[in-house]
Amino acid sequence: MANSRFEYVKNFEQPDHLLPNTWVVVRIDGRGFTKLCTKYNFEKPNDRRALDLMNAAAKAVVTEIPETTIAYGVSDEYSFVFHKSCTLFERRASKLVSTIVSTFTAYYIHLWSSHFPDTPLSAPLPSFDGRAVCYPSVQNLRDYMSWRQADCHINNLYNTTFWTLIKRGGMDGKEAEKFLAGTLAADKNEILFSKYQINYNNEPEIFKKGSVVFRDYELVEPDNRDLAKVADDAAEPPQQSRTQAENEKKQRAKARVVVDHLDIIKDDFWGRRPWLLSNKPGKIPKQT
Amino acid sequence: MANSRFEYVKNFEQPDHLLPNTWVVVRIDGRGFTKLCTKYNFEKPNDRRALDLMNAAAKAVVTEIPETTIAYGVSDEYSFVFHKSCTLFERRASKLVSTIVSTFTAYYIHLWSSHFPDTPLSAPLPSFDGRAVCYPSVQNLRDYMSWRQADCHINNLYNTTFWTLIKRGGMDGKEAEKFLAGTLAADKNEILFSKYQINYNNEPEIFKKGSVVFRDYELVEPDNRDLAKVADDAAEPPQQSRTQAENEKKQRAKARVVVDHLDIIKDDFWGRRPWLLSNKPGKIPKQT
Amino acid sequence: MANSRFEYVKNFEQPDHLLPNTWVVVRIDGRGFTKLCTKYNFEKPNDRRALDLMNAAAKAVVTEIPETTIAYGVSDEYSFVFHKSCTLFERRASKLVSTIVSTFTAYYIHLWSSHFPDTPLSAPLPSFDGRAVCYPSVQNLRDYMSWRQADCHINNLYNTTFWTLIKRGGMDGKEAEKFLAGTLAADKNEILFSKYQINYNNEPEIFKKGSVVFRDYELVEPDNRDLAKVADDAAEPPQQSRTQAENEKKQRAKARVVVDHLDIIKDDFWGRRPWLLSNKPGKIPKQT
Amino acid sequence: MANSRFEYVKNFEQPDHLLPNTWVVVRIDGRGFTKLCTKYNFEKPNDRRALDLMNAAAKAVVTEIPETTIAYGVSDEYSFVFHKSCTLFERRASKLVSTIVSTFTAYYIHLWSSHFPDTPLSAPLPSFDGRAVCYPSVQNLRDYMSWRQADCHINNLYNTTFWTLIKRGGMDGKEAEKFLAGTLAADKNEILFSKYQINYNNEPEIFKKGSVVFRDYELVEPDNRDLAKVADDAAEPPQQSRTQAENEKKQRAKARVVVDHLDIIKDDFWGRRPWLLSNKPGKIPKQT
Repeated sequence: MANSRFEYVKNFEQPDHLLPNTWVVVRIDGRGFTKLCTKYNFEKPNDRRALDLMNAAAKAVVTEIPETTIAYGVSDEYSFVFHKSCTLFERRASKLVSTIVSTFTAYYIHLWSSHFPDTPLSAPLPSFDGRAVCYPSVQNLRDYMSWRQADCHINNLYNTTFWTLIKRGGMDGKEAEKFLAGTLAADKNEILFSKYQINYNNEPEIFKKGSVVFRDYELVEPDNRDLAKVADDAAEPPQQSRTQAENEKKQRAKARVVVDHLDIIKDDFWGRRPWLLSNKPGKIPKQT
Repeated sequence: MANSRFEYVKNFEQPDHLLPNTWVVVRIDGRGFTKLCTKYNFEKPNDRRALDLMNAAAKAVVTEIPETTIAYGVSDEYSFVFHKSCTLFERRASKLVSTIVSTFTAYYIHLWSSHFPDTPLSAPLPSFDGRAVCYPSVQNLRDYMSWRQADCHINNLYNTTFWTLIKRGGMDGKEAEKFLAGTLAADKNEILFSKYQINYNNEPEIFKKGSVVFRDYELVEPDNRDLAKVADDAAEPPQQSRTQAENEKKQRAKARVVVDHLDIIKDDFWGRRPWLLSNKPGKIPKQT
Repeated sequence: MANSRFEYVKNFEQPDHLLPNTWVVVRIDGRGFTKLCTKYNFEKPNDRRALDLMNAAAKAVVTEIPETTIAYGVSDEYSFVFHKSCTLFERRASKLVSTIVSTFTAYYIHLWSSHFPDTPLSAPLPSFDGRAVCYPSVQNLRDYMSWRQADCHINNLYNTTFWTLIKRGGMDGKEAEKFLAGTLAADKNEILFSKYQINYNNEPEIFKKGSVVFRDYELVEPDNRDLAKVADDAAEPPQQSRTQAENEKKQRAKARVVVDHLDIIKDDFWGRRPWLLSNKPGKIPKQT
Repeated sequence: MANSRFEYVKNFEQPDHLLPNTWVVVRIDGRGFTKLCTKYNFEKPNDRRALDLMNAAAKAVVTEIPETTIAYGVSDEYSFVFHKSCTLFERRASKLVSTIVSTFTAYYIHLWSSHFPDTPLSAPLPSFDGRAVCYPSVQNLRDYMSWRQADCHINNLYNTTFWTLIKRGGMDGKEAEKFLAGTLAADKNEILFSKYQINYNNEPEIFKKGSVVFRDYELVEPDNRDLAKVADDAAEPPQQSRTQAENEKKQRAKARVVVDHLDIIKDDFWGRRPWLLSNKPGKIPKQT
């Protein structure tokens, strides 16, 4: 059977290579997780098991796809960052997005029973969608990461207060919403503290800061140079020899992938972990 | 904490709406399935359990996402078709691709243990990548579907002969490859038949034709009109009232999603199932 | 001097091939023509010299770029249509748009002095911008063309009435605008007729219908078949032999490019000129 | 006449906004200029009148579109650079490309008779095509500019030698081509010098370096900082207040647009003209 007369249909595929020398962020979001939270009885405002499952899936993605520089997650979303010099899948957007989404989903489903041992999954199953965005400069990338973490903080402070008003203040959802309308962060802190003796600062870091996943090397003393400039400079031009790339890949494979809950808005996080922006693997810490 | 100074990063997201009034095909492919076949000892040339698992996952996708018109699968790939009038996710490519890939992956992992009860999954888990392609006319779409099914036939005839030469002819892979170099379809049929008494026509339809997943309504008598023209005509213009859309959605939800192994190259398949190209639900068959 | 270390910058060019088998419309618009009308004292509501210049430039474009199927112009805009089977410049959007815009501009400037012999051009010179849009079906394309011609009619009826109120009714712009607010087409016709004895139907066709530019062959008797279906069918699949393409190119070169002012919304125009939708050159009319 | 049933066709326009915070280069190229050179008897290897016309048109573009940072031209091509913070036309690719191409073409045609007073234009007229490319970093942008200027040098040395061999050495085209095959830059310099007493270094700068067009402010002493880093830093983040933007627009309008023939590969050019990379207008030089 001649297949050739049909093959012209391949010409309809349109290339979707992302602009070279830009940071690529693939952000994935849970589909219909509001329903899912109800269906599986997730705790409010934060379900620790659900967050741990998200983090375990994200850690598996970062481990399995070593080109991932860093990932940041909050609630039912996760952002995976590829270095601006990354050429994985020739930077094809659909390949990058679909691979991340699929790998994440696979681990989320596979690891579900470890995190929810008493709650079997049933159709419709949890799933995620995703998209890729390019950021030309380190400043843009860091502003993206800061945007997500600031969002995490804002939402978590709101949700913590909202659910305290409901669970301990006896309000229903509408009352709590009305009560909080127009309040500032300081107001919410005050409500929590004066009415319910909750010091928001003592809430778990995973709730307040979200989760960050990266390869762990020895921390360095940050120098005085402007970080963004150093990094924008570091990977110019975007080419690299094949041997060098292979060596660095091996070093990267040796590094431990960690999940932590740190401030990624301030310079300190990035200054002490220069490998994140430079894409040069750091020193493997001595085993202890 | 003011989030507003970071929010400008949202402007870097670039729209990826697919051209209206075109058929959208989302094709997904198993990542590294050659390794996976070895790891989990898939039978050669076809592993019925693996194909059944693919089909079960595809059926779940078609059921859960009722905007899917039809799906066709072979080996570790599956193509999902959206009608040219479909406006799901505003036709955003990354949303469509990631949702299909994620939902498929979720069911593939979830249903694995039913199809491979004695073979637990372990990292790296199976995953899939995907892409979306637009086809302007029914002819283009049908040529795409024909391309995949012709490919299925060509590969299956080759693989069936190749593995027969190895398993029953005692050749190793290189010998079998050399032996088959330059042979035509007729030659392979002849080898199978005269040497090994295998009539290729009697091979299981699922291997020869692949699998097609769709909503099942009562078959109709195909009329004499040109199918493509009728269908190109049927959905013009692409708009539809909300009520009508809702009604059809309900009808669609009642239809049974079936997996079958039929010739989708010839007109007959499409002629007797006009709902596939017209997007008008057919009659629900009487229960028997 | 080694140029090679800079050549990597070529990789930043991103492909912009338009989807195959779709009709391509390149629409160009005058930049800042409101100022230009004032600067060069264009007559209101229509300046015949300016329209003739637009048409002369469009005719030159259609003549010089034989892949153009048809063009339609009104006011300071012109739409150039390429057949869905057209592969000019590999369908690269920026090549198509820039070539059309540049060729049009060149003739507009070059022919200016023939149409405005007493009005020399001075900086800033007239210029145009452009964009390409794909239409998958004949119906979509015809609806695009109808949209532009309906727009021409609506604007011209308004402008004709508006300027009559000013020139003959002694109103100023604001008064005329207020007077016409909320009026329907019938009202404007009535105002023109009863107050100023102007029968709008007798206005010049070029003002009421705009201008259409195409290759002229012998008209045919339209048959009863649905035109769009015939045409959607006609060019499937989009491939064509090189010889055939060359022959048709020659035939096309022999055809006279005409500018006319016809109804392109009704079927008749397209039915009697099947070459426009089929892309098969017609019969050259006998010289008279 | 109701226009609304056609208006859906507007939805087929697809957005083409270029990625924010990247340098945009619009490069235009003469269409079929080999034929044009012959038709209008351009001098070989360089026609001064033709280059002056290109430069005059480019100067008009830079003057009329003040968002242009710098332009570089050689032979029948010209590259126009927009600062990474530029938001002209919302960064729509087709708007940017078509406007540049159209404005350039308009001046090229309009100014033709001043530069070729004895050679009237005739159809087919000169025209240009264009495309837009994004460069994320200053280094990428400068490498692009260096690429074009290095190309200018390589081509001009070749062409100068080639045409000397023909005009003074009596060779025909094929002989000259063969003679030069495999020669290095040094060889060509030597041929010119020893055989024809031509010191290539004394050739006109416009031929050796091409032409650069920019707004002229007072030169500054370059400081020791890394230029690219300073500039990458300078325009972060890409927002700017409206007032500030307006003020700078005015300052820019006062600056003289100059055409010069300078080395744009070395740091000196950019270091002494920091306004090019920073997008902050410099000091207007005192009139003399």
